[in-house]
Amino acid sequence: MLAEIITIGDEILIGQIVDTNSAWIAQKLNENGIRVKQITSVSDERSHILESLKAASQRADLIIITGGLGPTKDDITKKTLADYFGVGFRSDADALEDVKKIFAASNRPLLDVNIRQADVPENCTVLRNKNGTAPGMWFEYNSRVYVSMPGVPFEMMYLVEEEVLPRVKAHFRLSAIVHYNILTAGIGESFLAEAIAPVENDLPPYIKLAYLPKLGQVRLRLSAYGENEEKLRQEVESYAERIRSIIQEYDVVHDDKPLEKAVLDYMQQMGVTLAVAESCTGGYLSHLITQHPGSSEVFLGGAISYSNDLKKTMLNVSDETLARFGAVSEETVREMTAGALGNYHSDYAIAISGIAGPGGGTPDKPVGTVWVAVAGRNKVETRKFMFPGRRQQNIERAAVNSLIMLLKLVREDHG
Amino acid sequence: MLAEIITIGDEILIGQIVDTNSAWIAQKLNENGIRVKQITSVSDERSHILESLKAASQRADLIIITGGLGPTKDDITKKTLADYFGVGFRSDADALEDVKKIFAASNRPLLDVNIRQADVPENCTVLRNKNGTAPGMWFEYNSRVYVSMPGVPFEMMYLVEEEVLPRVKAHFRLSAIVHYNILTAGIGESFLAEAIAPVENDLPPYIKLAYLPKLGQVRLRLSAYGENEEKLRQEVESYAERIRSIIQEYDVVHDDKPLEKAVLDYMQQMGVTLAVAESCTGGYLSHLITQHPGSSEVFLGGAISYSNDLKKTMLNVSDETLARFGAVSEETVREMTAGALGNYHSDYAIAISGIAGPGGGTPDKPVGTVWVAVAGRNKVETRKFMFPGRRQQNIERAAVNSLIMLLKLVREDHG
Repeated sequence: MLAEIITIGDEILIGQIVDTNSAWIAQKLNENGIRVKQITSVSDERSHILESLKAASQRADLIIITGGLGPTKDDITKKTLADYFGVGFRSDADALEDVKKIFAASNRPLLDVNIRQADVPENCTVLRNKNGTAPGMWFEYNSRVYVSMPGVPFEMMYLVEEEVLPRVKAHFRLSAIVHYNILTAGIGESFLAEAIAPVENDLPPYIKLAYLPKLGQVRLRLSAYGENEEKLRQEVESYAERIRSIIQEYDVVHDDKPLEKAVLDYMQQMGVTLAVAESCTGGYLSHLITQHPGSSEVFLGGAISYSNDLKKTMLNVSDETLARFGAVSEETVREMTAGALGNYHSDYAIAISGIAGPGGGTPDKPVGTVWVAVAGRNKVETRKFMFPGRRQQNIERAAVNSLIMLLKLVREDHG
Repeated sequence: MLAEIITIGDEILIGQIVDTNSAWIAQKLNENGIRVKQITSVSDERSHILESLKAASQRADLIIITGGLGPTKDDITKKTLADYFGVGFRSDADALEDVKKIFAASNRPLLDVNIRQADVPENCTVLRNKNGTAPGMWFEYNSRVYVSMPGVPFEMMYLVEEEVLPRVKAHFRLSAIVHYNILTAGIGESFLAEAIAPVENDLPPYIKLAYLPKLGQVRLRLSAYGENEEKLRQEVESYAERIRSIIQEYDVVHDDKPLEKAVLDYMQQMGVTLAVAESCTGGYLSHLITQHPGSSEVFLGGAISYSNDLKKTMLNVSDETLARFGAVSEETVREMTAGALGNYHSDYAIAISGIAGPGGGTPDKPVGTVWVAVAGRNKVETRKFMFPGRRQQNIERAAVNSLIMLLKLVREDHG
């Protein structure tokens, strides 16, 4: 069972927006045992859309299309789909009701172009969109299923979860897929590959191992495809155990969740709280944590002490420390954690201070120099990093490494 | 002059990573007058990669390929490219030197698989990668140019800027492209379209108008393609002026930069500073701001007062206010801005408190309720929003709207 995703819209092809929809849809399809064969982004251009639809239908059983359903002239997906299927249009009563509701709720006048949003190709089953004015559309044509949805992420997400996936499950007989993730840190991809080669060479053809390097970590992913989910799971787990026994010291988490979520969940289980003191990461670490619902059980908040003044007023870093060692120093991050623990009354604290770049580097402390401290009630761990990247990469690496250090410390305290 | 981007790697197709590379590359190509016809993501599968290369070469002059160049078994791009071009391999001395340097610098042992990273298809010109072990590769074949780069973003970015773009400019005769962006807020896409229809209908065929809706804003983008850049720019500006005179009250910024960067630049010009007090946005607003180099000229820092306790200790919000009106209230965000201005000594402050969801909603204050205050030394503006989205969308909308409110206030003070 193969799927393809086609995103339509000039905004992706000129790079004005990043296509996050496709990754999200791909993840959902994978969880349900549907392999995504190709993701294609094309512009709002009739002939190219038709060509992409035809090419996708030759490779896949399910074609998911997003974008190009707005009311304006540059949105031509609906018209092009009708041409592709060789059908005309009908006005859909349910879709029109949804459009009217949206406009009534926001007190905006209903324009002609909006009423026309309820016009759909004759062969379509409308997937009702409660969050926007463009309905989702389901088509069955030449033994393929086509789904068209608006490109606005939360409208698309709602449609996929509530309308598309239930229909896809009912329509196709799906083979099982089982993933197992092992997040490693502190070991390079090639060294890792050499270490676990004996296991990799033993894998049967229906179990694949992928290396997903990211910011100094490597995520190993075992994926098994087949019919018997329980049997696949057992097999995958036994290979995963072999891998984990080889690389134990580099094994961070084996949940299929982001690192920060794994840290949050572990701290919540242990009943402990966290405050942060961010300088060069400028809120990124806090955002990483608070993007997860329920993070407030663990995360109390913290200081974005971007300026030196705020390191003093918010975190009680001493004038002397700043003058003698500088803002990017072991002493400063130590005092930042002490200030965070003291002022914010958390069980643990993270402090980060560094030079994210591109400016601000010196011969002593070049761009990429980052000091991290993690502290509990009884212990402070500090570490200096020299990251090789650009601003955003340095920020992300600093945040990720601080979380790895924190997890280690909390585990020691509660192991 | 058309280009296509092909990203290779299972991690995109299972949705484990978002393809940010393609957007970045597309942006760079566009800035240089190269239109991206299609972006394609395929898995590490030989026949499918070959098929994609062939299809892309039938539509485009330049094919940019990222990913699949790691040292591990699942990375097969290089081998597949050699097959596509019908050539063997050679070891490249420069590439080998770069590999050795990287390993020497990090004190890691040089493995056989790493030495093989310097093996390249015979017909390739090596693009030296100073940030990683996989060299970039440039191929000319059947009047098309193919470029292959590693998928690690900062390695790819370096190669594009330093190696690929200069060569592309030298190799192709490029037609000019001019963009003009107008960011609007507070007006729906269809209402906007109706308002500016007279201008849109007047546009010549070589000037396109796109509507890019995002989080309650609509970005209008005029794009002109042709030979004479200066003439295109004048034409585009004259259409843009007509549009801006129609929609003036909704016109936020017309720079081709993100909203927060426009706000930062304006505040820097005015010589004023900013502190923030974030509750439900949890660091997202600070991160949005501090991702930009030089933001420290304006941004001092602030409080992530996620818990109620921290609203009191960090921002002096009174017990009485919290008890009587709750954390999500006009009174609380007012006091948060006062606390931020007072404690952090900035000229302006933003405070945000709301219910991002999915939990925490009540009949009185459902999920999506967000109070924002922006304050200068003489004035506080507050506003209540009711956002319809999911957690991340609510967080983003709150941050974006707070920036629009702030820009308005700073402009009033300095207009």
